[in-house]
Amino acid sequence: MAGHDTISFLSDYGRTDEFVGVVHSVVRSIAPHAHVVDITHDIPPHDVRAGALCLARSVQYLCPGVLLAVVDPGVGTDRRAIAVEVGGGQAVLVGPDNGLLSMASSMVGGADRAVALTNTDLHLPAPGATFAGRDVFAPVAAHLCNGVDFDELGEPVDTSSLLPGLLPVTTLDGDELRCEVLWVDRYGNIQLNVDPDEVEGWGDRIQVVWDGGSRTAVRTDAYGRLADRDVGLVPDSTGLLAVVTPRSSAAFTLGLAAGDEVRLRRLDGDDTAGEGVTTPVQLGRRN
Amino acid sequence: MAGHDTISFLSDYGRTDEFVGVVHSVVRSIAPHAHVVDITHDIPPHDVRAGALCLARSVQYLCPGVLLAVVDPGVGTDRRAIAVEVGGGQAVLVGPDNGLLSMASSMVGGADRAVALTNTDLHLPAPGATFAGRDVFAPVAAHLCNGVDFDELGEPVDTSSLLPGLLPVTTLDGDELRCEVLWVDRYGNIQLNVDPDEVEGWGDRIQVVWDGGSRTAVRTDAYGRLADRDVGLVPDSTGLLAVVTPRSSAAFTLGLAAGDEVRLRRLDGDDTAGEGVTTPVQLGRRN
Amino acid sequence: MAGHDTISFLSDYGRTDEFVGVVHSVVRSIAPHAHVVDITHDIPPHDVRAGALCLARSVQYLCPGVLLAVVDPGVGTDRRAIAVEVGGGQAVLVGPDNGLLSMASSMVGGADRAVALTNTDLHLPAPGATFAGRDVFAPVAAHLCNGVDFDELGEPVDTSSLLPGLLPVTTLDGDELRCEVLWVDRYGNIQLNVDPDEVEGWGDRIQVVWDGGSRTAVRTDAYGRLADRDVGLVPDSTGLLAVVTPRSSAAFTLGLAAGDEVRLRRLDGDDTAGEGVTTPVQLGRRN
Repeated sequence: MAGHDTISFLSDYGRTDEFVGVVHSVVRSIAPHAHVVDITHDIPPHDVRAGALCLARSVQYLCPGVLLAVVDPGVGTDRRAIAVEVGGGQAVLVGPDNGLLSMASSMVGGADRAVALTNTDLHLPAPGATFAGRDVFAPVAAHLCNGVDFDELGEPVDTSSLLPGLLPVTTLDGDELRCEVLWVDRYGNIQLNVDPDEVEGWGDRIQVVWDGGSRTAVRTDAYGRLADRDVGLVPDSTGLLAVVTPRSSAAFTLGLAAGDEVRLRRLDGDDTAGEGVTTPVQLGRRN
Repeated sequence: MAGHDTISFLSDYGRTDEFVGVVHSVVRSIAPHAHVVDITHDIPPHDVRAGALCLARSVQYLCPGVLLAVVDPGVGTDRRAIAVEVGGGQAVLVGPDNGLLSMASSMVGGADRAVALTNTDLHLPAPGATFAGRDVFAPVAAHLCNGVDFDELGEPVDTSSLLPGLLPVTTLDGDELRCEVLWVDRYGNIQLNVDPDEVEGWGDRIQVVWDGGSRTAVRTDAYGRLADRDVGLVPDSTGLLAVVTPRSSAAFTLGLAAGDEVRLRRLDGDDTAGEGVTTPVQLGRRN
Repeated sequence: MAGHDTISFLSDYGRTDEFVGVVHSVVRSIAPHAHVVDITHDIPPHDVRAGALCLARSVQYLCPGVLLAVVDPGVGTDRRAIAVEVGGGQAVLVGPDNGLLSMASSMVGGADRAVALTNTDLHLPAPGATFAGRDVFAPVAAHLCNGVDFDELGEPVDTSSLLPGLLPVTTLDGDELRCEVLWVDRYGNIQLNVDPDEVEGWGDRIQVVWDGGSRTAVRTDAYGRLADRDVGLVPDSTGLLAVVTPRSSAAFTLGLAAGDEVRLRRLDGDDTAGEGVTTPVQLGRRN
């Protein structure tokens, strides 16, 4: 088998310590031809959900090959270390079995098969049990790039036994959609767990309500169409709805953070709807 | 045409979100042989001027090839996405037409020709219009590395129509040079928009005056020649004068930040000039 | 001579400015085949000791080749710029002669020979003397990758004249081991300068005392065996003892930082020892 030539790498290691550099060095020592693409290493420490969401947003853009993901609060316990094959062998996901890999795996068709990384011949000897990224996951990722067979990594595990990742679902309650902030990005854009289709036909103004305030948001598909003090609802780069404010941080302005509950309230026909629009307008549809 | 093999990449994406990693992945998916050199991704969000200055400081050290630069507050509006050829085809600058690329372009001889990136066949399909780095700029940079012709990127645009970058100029007012803080670096060194030649012959002590204080600075070409509580004026690594304090942050000590106005006042012959120096001393001249 | 193909790179440059990207560009311009692995660039500015410790923790995992390290408060003074050959030519360490390289050098067998980087033909011309990483160290590292002979870099220097790095030693005072915090990592784990062997036979509970408090710590080799409010003493990923608290920052909880003094006090036989353990227990031994 030819092996892979790209390892996409996400972790909560930060870049201040040497953890990321050491993982790169271990990979290069074992598989010099492998190229490592850093997705991010600034997942908040131990925040498995944030890591899983980041992988889910990224996965369809990653190169075929190995996805190495380490957000691992259970390191040194009996949580399993796993590899998951997806896409008919196009990619292998390597990391802890704590839900981190599950959403990404689902988005590319689900796990074909999985193994626990029990073959310690493929690991590095270690003075302590606290840095599995260096001692277990990175060597396994590198050996996969060298063509080591998936089956050699360890004991097969039932894919149905892998810990799932839980994406919060929205609930529609009359004219109100209860949703949740999935992510606040660097610019302060507030990503909701809402597909634009869920508010299709709601018109071009929608009330955004949260614990601490409410604002009427303009539905649009481009920041540039928003006036300076508008709040906008735009389909973001991953296709979900985001609450934005032009050239400022919506999260800061509205006081919202990842995990917060938000409600979208239908306004059409309502007095507060601009220009008395009653005909549903379709904006920001994905193709 | 052979294509390029290096993409130098600057943005305001930060490294906390996956934006940079996704751009790397997109490039590698399209042009696996291309190597991406990250200049920085920590330009303050939407700060086009800071990005343009950073490019201007870096550009003469970058590898021939593609320069991919994204600080793009106008994404999703009708601001143009452009590519600019410089140096007789040695390099192509790819980014938004908002002044970000202009200073760098000028420093390497100016734009030979330019196109608007209107050929959407070379872009990625996108669920939203907010991540042009991933959907427009990165694919174009990668296609250039694959040898796609500059003309194929889109409609030619007149290079004189490109938005210029504005570097603040100094003004000499009697014995006083009005200048501006261009940049404060990690160490707290305060870069001024002043060429050392502008204060040639002013002697080895120069008064630095700003809103909130003034200090007599020692002109030197090495930090090591400064005493502990000195303020120094040294030619920095890009050849401009910087206000420094030894082993501490001059910006913190003096309370100065990028964009602040500073005045340099000539002292020679003045009582405060050390050792009564009246003969102009030439220090820190660039070759 | 064939030259090296990997440059491992550590600095205090941060990633906000373009310093790291410019160094990468300079290396690639001179030695396009060389691959740069970033260890970290977030060593606190001018903190030579923190940089030296980081290198010492990393060095045994780095690829053979060139180690480029720049934490250089004395740049522009007469401190020497040096290259140090180690491991019979397997690796060359390049950086300032200020102690930064010494611990790493010792850990891989010590310096075989050293030179001062006085051959300016191998440097870049520079407008100022403040960025030796770009103008001196990076070009030298790249030339080494191109096969330039070690002797060509400059004047030989006596390896015994190189500035040593000083690792604080512990002192045993009766039942008390005086030690020091070497490093607080991203997760808040507190690394002490203590080999687990130094407290071998002390039982499974050890008193941790510092200016401002004391806690009884549980000796274990896995975070997972600690209860929620326990303080643990575990061998960390480099084989030294670390004070940890499960899923929280021990440094924040206990108010400790790098450089602080800590005392470990023997408790066995004492009332506070859990389960009245008197038989020494061996945990976390390194192989």
